[in-house]
Amino acid sequence: MESVKSLIKEVKAGNRRALARAITLVESTRTDHRDQALLLMDELLEKNSHSIRIGLTGTPGVGKSTFIESFGMMLIKQGFKVAVLAVDPTSKLSGGSILGDKTRMELLSREPAAFIRPSPSQEYQGGVAPKTREAIALCEAANFDLIIVETVGVGQSEVMVSEMTDIFLLLMAPGGGDELQGVKRGIMEIADLILVNKADGELKSTALRTCADYAGALRLLRKRQIDPDDFPKALTLSSLEATGLDKVWREINLLKDYRAKTGIWIDQRRNQSLDWFESELKNRMIQKFEKDSKFLELKSVFKKEVWDEKITPERAAEDILKTVEKNK
Amino acid sequence: MESVKSLIKEVKAGNRRALARAITLVESTRTDHRDQALLLMDELLEKNSHSIRIGLTGTPGVGKSTFIESFGMMLIKQGFKVAVLAVDPTSKLSGGSILGDKTRMELLSREPAAFIRPSPSQEYQGGVAPKTREAIALCEAANFDLIIVETVGVGQSEVMVSEMTDIFLLLMAPGGGDELQGVKRGIMEIADLILVNKADGELKSTALRTCADYAGALRLLRKRQIDPDDFPKALTLSSLEATGLDKVWREINLLKDYRAKTGIWIDQRRNQSLDWFESELKNRMIQKFEKDSKFLELKSVFKKEVWDEKITPERAAEDILKTVEKNK
Repeated sequence: MESVKSLIKEVKAGNRRALARAITLVESTRTDHRDQALLLMDELLEKNSHSIRIGLTGTPGVGKSTFIESFGMMLIKQGFKVAVLAVDPTSKLSGGSILGDKTRMELLSREPAAFIRPSPSQEYQGGVAPKTREAIALCEAANFDLIIVETVGVGQSEVMVSEMTDIFLLLMAPGGGDELQGVKRGIMEIADLILVNKADGELKSTALRTCADYAGALRLLRKRQIDPDDFPKALTLSSLEATGLDKVWREINLLKDYRAKTGIWIDQRRNQSLDWFESELKNRMIQKFEKDSKFLELKSVFKKEVWDEKITPERAAEDILKTVEKNK
Repeated sequence: MESVKSLIKEVKAGNRRALARAITLVESTRTDHRDQALLLMDELLEKNSHSIRIGLTGTPGVGKSTFIESFGMMLIKQGFKVAVLAVDPTSKLSGGSILGDKTRMELLSREPAAFIRPSPSQEYQGGVAPKTREAIALCEAANFDLIIVETVGVGQSEVMVSEMTDIFLLLMAPGGGDELQGVKRGIMEIADLILVNKADGELKSTALRTCADYAGALRLLRKRQIDPDDFPKALTLSSLEATGLDKVWREINLLKDYRAKTGIWIDQRRNQSLDWFESELKNRMIQKFEKDSKFLELKSVFKKEVWDEKITPERAAEDILKTVEKNK
């Protein structure tokens, strides 16, 4: 237990190695680690943290790493501490990682005020590593001001990330057109800011046009009552030339201040905590059964029956739980 | 119980109204209906059905309905019975349905050998209506040869559909380019055939070029060991001129015959049944707890504590289940 106590102290002091160890601890599935992780979180979960939790998504190649690097460096120069958590949806079929590039964010990774955590490669349907919420909370305990949770816009991961962050950014490349907007429809609904990257050199005019297109599309979507009328917004920026980044930061703070004033900011976080609670509860309910040897025995018997098509999957599930219940 | 018996008989006789009633019954959440639905499925789930279950996705506007109409009409003329199940991911934010068009598939809907079932509008995370598997099985009991499960490529729904069908088709429009391919990367991995639609009139040459692009991209993806070397394939077609549809049907049958020969066809279905079993089991485990009044009481107490940030969501979940356990 002593080690958890000292870990807590070091995380609170902002020690980045301790922070990394703490995240590793909460990600561990070992039973003794689980207990330690619970204690750690008891102590480190902050009430009403001052941080801004930013979700970021975009297709591969759109320049997410370069954006985070430029944006993060700008904020660090202004005295902020910036944490980056990558949520890496590992492909179920290829088994490979999409965010595989280890040389990303070179400048940022050398800054003492930055913390970069690649996602663990976990086999998890939907792609989000299950402990991202905990990792966010730990970064806040270590006094990071900005926590950027980055994900590739594949499958469901961006929705999950949006459900654990305050503000959601969608990074886009210049060009695209109607098709792309169709694909992005679901994502556009959850974005607070659409950022058209690469507004530099030859692509600048295309970027401006694309931005206007997205701004038009955003006007067609239902507004969220919780925000000022002109949100969600589309903006252009250049990560390469570091232009437009200050504007992004201003808009983020505009949104934060507005939502803080109306009380939405804290309400949204509290609702997210309730979602987190529900999901922890579900996981534990399932684990309870999985520990029961009678249940496991029945399950393996019925699994074979289902495989052999002797019983419907529904009937099998029904029968198992009825039998377990009776034996209690 | 008599009504379930006669319903079973009528579904087996291919009565489409009975089939629609049967699907409505399995979708019902009323307790007495749940029991009837279990009995219904006991009787109607076929062992090794001869059907082909086809998953179909594509962005809005790509022409899914027109494709299904043309493709379905061609097969009906060849003597097949065609069922279409729409899986409609209702948007969580707008609450609206994406597949809202009621006038879709007009010709097909008038054919006695066709059955079209729009998806129920259920609030379900991820979008897939939970009873699609049952609906597929019921269509098979009613002797449909082809069951097309259609979904919009938003979020996770296409992955879920691919996990309950034999063969997965991705319908694309001509054009698109690199960006789009990035977005579609996850979907391309699960597609057996990529169909470039609208290969007619002015768009024909663009469609051919797009098809060649996708064929190239497919060559870069890891092959599935289970299929002939030249799969997955990209094909062009025109729903409007009804060209290329026979080729799609040939390729589907090629794949089916090959997989049947190697045993993969039935193995895949059995694995899908096991997934179905696991998901039924999980739902029932959670329901068991939700019926316990002590559990519900504790949950509402702790929910408030979580909202007030007095306890971590994890600790709250842990404490609830420990207390419920102790009281048993």
